[in-house]
Amino acid sequence: MPTPSFAFSAKAQRTGEAPISYLIAVAKANPGLISFAAGLVDPTTLPGEETLAITQKLLSDPARARDVLQYGTTVGYAPLREAIVRHLEQLEAKPAATMSIDADNIILTSGSQQALYILADVLLDPGDVVIVEAPSYFVYAGALATFGARIMAVPMDRDGMVVEELDKLLHRLESHGQLDRVKAIYCQSYFQNPTGLTLSLERRPRLVEIVRKYSKRHRILLIEDAAYRELRYEGDDLPSLKSFDLDNTLVASCYTFDKPFAAGLKTGFVVLPSDVGKKVLEQKGNHDFGSSHFCQQICYEALESGAYATHLDAVRDGYRKKRDLMLASMKTNLPEHSEVQWTHAKGGLYVWLSLPLSINTSRLGGMFDDCLKAGVIYVPGEYCFHPDEQNHVPQNHMRLCYAVTPIDQIEPGVQKLAGVIKTRLR
Amino acid sequence: MPTPSFAFSAKAQRTGEAPISYLIAVAKANPGLISFAAGLVDPTTLPGEETLAITQKLLSDPARARDVLQYGTTVGYAPLREAIVRHLEQLEAKPAATMSIDADNIILTSGSQQALYILADVLLDPGDVVIVEAPSYFVYAGALATFGARIMAVPMDRDGMVVEELDKLLHRLESHGQLDRVKAIYCQSYFQNPTGLTLSLERRPRLVEIVRKYSKRHRILLIEDAAYRELRYEGDDLPSLKSFDLDNTLVASCYTFDKPFAAGLKTGFVVLPSDVGKKVLEQKGNHDFGSSHFCQQICYEALESGAYATHLDAVRDGYRKKRDLMLASMKTNLPEHSEVQWTHAKGGLYVWLSLPLSINTSRLGGMFDDCLKAGVIYVPGEYCFHPDEQNHVPQNHMRLCYAVTPIDQIEPGVQKLAGVIKTRLR
Repeated sequence: MPTPSFAFSAKAQRTGEAPISYLIAVAKANPGLISFAAGLVDPTTLPGEETLAITQKLLSDPARARDVLQYGTTVGYAPLREAIVRHLEQLEAKPAATMSIDADNIILTSGSQQALYILADVLLDPGDVVIVEAPSYFVYAGALATFGARIMAVPMDRDGMVVEELDKLLHRLESHGQLDRVKAIYCQSYFQNPTGLTLSLERRPRLVEIVRKYSKRHRILLIEDAAYRELRYEGDDLPSLKSFDLDNTLVASCYTFDKPFAAGLKTGFVVLPSDVGKKVLEQKGNHDFGSSHFCQQICYEALESGAYATHLDAVRDGYRKKRDLMLASMKTNLPEHSEVQWTHAKGGLYVWLSLPLSINTSRLGGMFDDCLKAGVIYVPGEYCFHPDEQNHVPQNHMRLCYAVTPIDQIEPGVQKLAGVIKTRLR
Repeated sequence: MPTPSFAFSAKAQRTGEAPISYLIAVAKANPGLISFAAGLVDPTTLPGEETLAITQKLLSDPARARDVLQYGTTVGYAPLREAIVRHLEQLEAKPAATMSIDADNIILTSGSQQALYILADVLLDPGDVVIVEAPSYFVYAGALATFGARIMAVPMDRDGMVVEELDKLLHRLESHGQLDRVKAIYCQSYFQNPTGLTLSLERRPRLVEIVRKYSKRHRILLIEDAAYRELRYEGDDLPSLKSFDLDNTLVASCYTFDKPFAAGLKTGFVVLPSDVGKKVLEQKGNHDFGSSHFCQQICYEALESGAYATHLDAVRDGYRKKRDLMLASMKTNLPEHSEVQWTHAKGGLYVWLSLPLSINTSRLGGMFDDCLKAGVIYVPGEYCFHPDEQNHVPQNHMRLCYAVTPIDQIEPGVQKLAGVIKTRLR
């Protein structure tokens, strides 16, 4: 008798292989490729010496060693949560109390991804609406879709999400009696993945006020993804969306130690209102009872010893060089053409390249394979969009990530890409 | 205008504070208490020196340091998955190929809890049935309930789950046309939490065959929780349920490095059929993209260097002493009474104490508060049961965990407990 298959949950049935898996497999099968697709961090930026010093300190003292190797709590290591509050105060340049934040509003998670995931888990039932930017971070949008959420998108310009368009969309949903289904707005407020764009200072309080305005029968959660905040290579830091949520009721901000410090520690955190925090914590208790206590202690020591700050300077210097080289190579090598345009991010890991509509960057659009033959890959822009009401997805963009690409491959990679684009432009 | 509340998901609304939170709060508020309630690991067993040596090795070599501090993959570190296969071969004393297992059937998770959770996530829709032992591990049963699952229970005796009763229950469900809702059977096959009991050798293949027999229109997953397997203090290891699933289609076995090695690393794994593995992996990609790569590398080095095996011997010696003292203290101090009975586990961290029906061990039953006044706490047995068809939950048991209790507090703790029981028996 043949073995019958499992009857998977509706959620599992809505979940498929991530599109990025194909790109990872392609890169693995072609080790000579220059990849602008991978979203890892630059291995040369990783804090080996700092982490060695910290682990020696933690583990050489038998009492401390027993503490760091024991289970932690679900909410996370209390001294780390307190250190995070102080760190946020530095970033925002104002006391946490002015934002109604204390250590109890911080939950440690397995990277910022887990925080994003659990926020969706506590908010979304099938048919609920989440509003994102177009384009948006495809991994999270994919996760949202597995909850059966309807993803709606608001366009971006150089100043990030066009908040007037969000207002219009919410107004339209309200007039169609659908405001009750809107559970969350997702915004990557710094150096967005995939565009590298940052929400302007002027739009930040307006976005919070729009969310407040439409929080009528229930509150809408503004999910701020601030993963790239500290990877700024020029200019001044901007206050977070969270910093405009003075009574701490509307915004959950997700951060990570993975990008600015060490990805292998997989430690992130979320700063959030108490009522949603309680629900997130209950859910996290079921997921895993709390993330690695050892990794949290390492992050704590890094913050407190100053190793985090020192290392972050080095990380920024490394990425700034790569970004400068990436942008210079693009200027030198890409054809001058009014419809060949790319973003000039002041931080983060991405350049978003837009091409004439006649060039199809999608996986099956021809150009992707030409690039593969030429020895370079990128993330097709189509992954970053949701079909609009006409079921249309833009297919003339690509995400280029320079984070993991060895610095001596950046110019050759751009040259290969430019070569294919020039052929296609003819 | 007052701020409206969030509209949480149905799952979040089904999720409440874990009952154990109350016990943790009680213990925290009364630092002088002797706790037989906490389910942590014995801090004196934690491998400080071993972890120091491993982290020094990993981080002193700059190339290796960059590797261990980089992101890993969602499925987990490949050399660790291969080492786990070899480790399982040792435990089962047969080649992995005879169980149709290779490294691709292993997924690394944030403790075994995350594996258990994601298995539920890929299988359960509201109204689905999961069958557990009575009593069972209350944290997982609580998580299952948040999916809207109906929990049904099968009694245990000294040989673990009474598999004939499972057969009868499945038969009854089938004759009521409800077999299609049965998604999983959950069994803690070694030193069960809360009873310390182990499923007998003879019942193991029978349990697998019963699951196969009722896997008619769809396959039922047998979730084996083997978290305590290696914490054996006497007698020989038993082959896992997984070892009887020769074509690797029916059983998912969950393990952890937390209990036998270091809880702070929060690293576990699941060995499972390929088709359910694919779904678990997709879901884990959305949850967190993979658990801490650094912690996985530490576990790998521990396994490969022999530090894991050496340390495990020390862990077993430590817990064996505590168990012996616990059982001896109970024999000396508890009143001789035909209805005062407790389990004599050969491993794990728990003793299950059963009292006459006239004694109510529940949180609000009076005895709990008397114990608190006397300076000792336990986990009320009621948490470990689901209401039966008459909505009845046994209230004359308690779970006693000797893992974290300092060894010199075990006898005094048992004496306090015995004192209260004697008063209640009068």
